[in-house]
Amino acid sequence: MQSYPSYLLENAVNQLSKLPGVGRKSALRLALYLLRQDKEQVNDFAQSILLMKNEVKYCKVCKNISDSDVCQICSDPKRDASTVCVVETIKEVMLVEETEQYHGLYHVLGGVISPMDGIKPSDLEIESLVERVAAGGIKEIVFALSPTMEGDTTAYYIARKLKDFDVKITTIARGISVGDELQYSDSVTLGRSILDRTEYRINN
Amino acid sequence: MQSYPSYLLENAVNQLSKLPGVGRKSALRLALYLLRQDKEQVNDFAQSILLMKNEVKYCKVCKNISDSDVCQICSDPKRDASTVCVVETIKEVMLVEETEQYHGLYHVLGGVISPMDGIKPSDLEIESLVERVAAGGIKEIVFALSPTMEGDTTAYYIARKLKDFDVKITTIARGISVGDELQYSDSVTLGRSILDRTEYRINN
Repeated sequence: MQSYPSYLLENAVNQLSKLPGVGRKSALRLALYLLRQDKEQVNDFAQSILLMKNEVKYCKVCKNISDSDVCQICSDPKRDASTVCVVETIKEVMLVEETEQYHGLYHVLGGVISPMDGIKPSDLEIESLVERVAAGGIKEIVFALSPTMEGDTTAYYIARKLKDFDVKITTIARGISVGDELQYSDSVTLGRSILDRTEYRINN
Repeated sequence: MQSYPSYLLENAVNQLSKLPGVGRKSALRLALYLLRQDKEQVNDFAQSILLMKNEVKYCKVCKNISDSDVCQICSDPKRDASTVCVVETIKEVMLVEETEQYHGLYHVLGGVISPMDGIKPSDLEIESLVERVAAGGIKEIVFALSPTMEGDTTAYYIARKLKDFDVKITTIARGISVGDELQYSDSVTLGRSILDRTEYRINN
């Protein structure tokens, strides 16, 4: 058990070690690094995190994070508003944008259905997606979910919910090997898989 | 080049990616993790860093970090005030304390002499060490510096400064292989090397 020369240091190490992938040794290294920086730099560091957490908004339409009520993508008139790509998190929006192969809008679910983790359909932005489709103007829904059991379950659940609407449902091509996490795929493969998206079939 | 859906997110990612060992991908992961936490938790996180940076003191005697003007170690009457262990940073104080083999006081230099990095003797807490020795009561100075060129140079420089005082100068045993960084050594080896400390010889 390490004893810290200062309670303030120990407290900062405790907080830093809560970050994913940061153990107590790394946390101490980060704390000592921050101690060596100028007060102004450390202040900017902490304020940037507080500002992000306290001021960031979620787009009323697609639930992506945004600095305004409606995000840049949803308010861009050059984007194809008749196509909506359904993703798990903000991170996948950024990944798909990076491929430069997609020009429609998004819908961020905030996760996937996962009974193991206690995530139910009602915890996700599924109802708001159904409402968007019900409001009209959407011709195609593209699933860009991880090809895992949870991703497949979520796509199936949403497809069932949308079956009575006149909307084409597609899913990105499985260039990505089954069982892999979407977030670790490379940009070219992911771009290819968007171009190759195929009709979603409830009974495949 | 990644485009961020929010300037606030991008700013936080920029700040997080300044941390040592944190690239832009990890910084994004950390930012999204913080976004998922409660406001209160993120506030505690940021405040712990600000508090540490703004409120932490440096011990007037040994220059270790401290919550008071004189640190816990320097103000502990059970410690042997006649022995002073000279270390590079706070981290080495913690490492030596962890061995439970040392019961004297410390002196934190704040670095080692390194012409390559532009660190001169006057940038370090060497003068304050000489003053401590000049004030009397110190019988032994133990060098616990990394066995690198910079560590050796610093020990040599300090030993020369102290040669006219009636003080024994020792250095921790080189159980640690030459060229290795002190901070990566294990507790047992480091503890052994403190017990085996040897007389410091200017001409060895």
